[in-house]
Amino acid sequence: MKDSSVNYRPIGVIRSGHTAAEKTPIQPAFAEDCAGRAEISPEYAEGLDGLEGFSHVYLLYHLHRAGPPQLRVKPFLQDEAQGVFATRAPCRPNAIGLSIVELVRRDGNVLHLDRVDILDGTPLLDIKPYTARFDRIEGTRNGWQDGLNDEEEIQTRGSRRPGGS
Amino acid sequence: MKDSSVNYRPIGVIRSGHTAAEKTPIQPAFAEDCAGRAEISPEYAEGLDGLEGFSHVYLLYHLHRAGPPQLRVKPFLQDEAQGVFATRAPCRPNAIGLSIVELVRRDGNVLHLDRVDILDGTPLLDIKPYTARFDRIEGTRNGWQDGLNDEEEIQTRGSRRPGGS
Repeated sequence: MKDSSVNYRPIGVIRSGHTAAEKTPIQPAFAEDCAGRAEISPEYAEGLDGLEGFSHVYLLYHLHRAGPPQLRVKPFLQDEAQGVFATRAPCRPNAIGLSIVELVRRDGNVLHLDRVDILDGTPLLDIKPYTARFDRIEGTRNGWQDGLNDEEEIQTRGSRRPGGS
Repeated sequence: MKDSSVNYRPIGVIRSGHTAAEKTPIQPAFAEDCAGRAEISPEYAEGLDGLEGFSHVYLLYHLHRAGPPQLRVKPFLQDEAQGVFATRAPCRPNAIGLSIVELVRRDGNVLHLDRVDILDGTPLLDIKPYTARFDRIEGTRNGWQDGLNDEEEIQTRGSRRPGGS
């Protein structure tokens, strides 16, 4: 099983104002006022019923413009190399992106979003509701991120805007 | 882009005590004391460096025993049908599973885990660190889940053990 490949077919596409990877916020936490849309193929629209009640959703998508996989990378937020699985960097063995975005409203097969940190034209693979019961974990240890303490520097690096978001 | 399929190759396999889907907890929140392992192919072991510092990690995996996709499903926790994207049900157009598990320790290319809600033998696609900064969202609206109020019933349904976890 481990060696057999897995095939997915995109369920839609993500639209955003981000066209240059190097200017795209690295996470939704740094993407305030970055509106965008998830345009779902009409055949799947019924699968969105009930999603309107959630304020936040996970988008899982294919990082179609990621570079070749690297096993050690420097995270955007600091300068010490880490194993790629200890980061959210795009250059992963399987280039799957995960973002928790704000769901502003649903309009048929289109989700209007905020805090979008995703390049325009990115193929969308799945949507899941974010729920406090399953996903808000208290008291975590956060590895190398616990060592970050210059909030201004973090905002500048994370938002990729001079002076931060 | 939307119509071109995406190919991933598993980076390893998930080992757990869960061999029957109908007895497997539906989420890590209901899988206390369910130990398991993520066995990563040795070629990717270096990519795990630094992960030890995180108490929780996302596992993204292929739900290899999911049934055919359905657009409307009854969530495990209640009896009213929802769009599949408003649930975490396995029968999705792209059968990608997402679990936030506890990382107990790393031993080379093996991650020892707790709160594993995943079937033994499941192909692993990606690992990402869970971080308070990116992933702990406060004050969310949680759709149909906000209407659940019988905690004993929720535990019984979620853990799939008589009497709850």
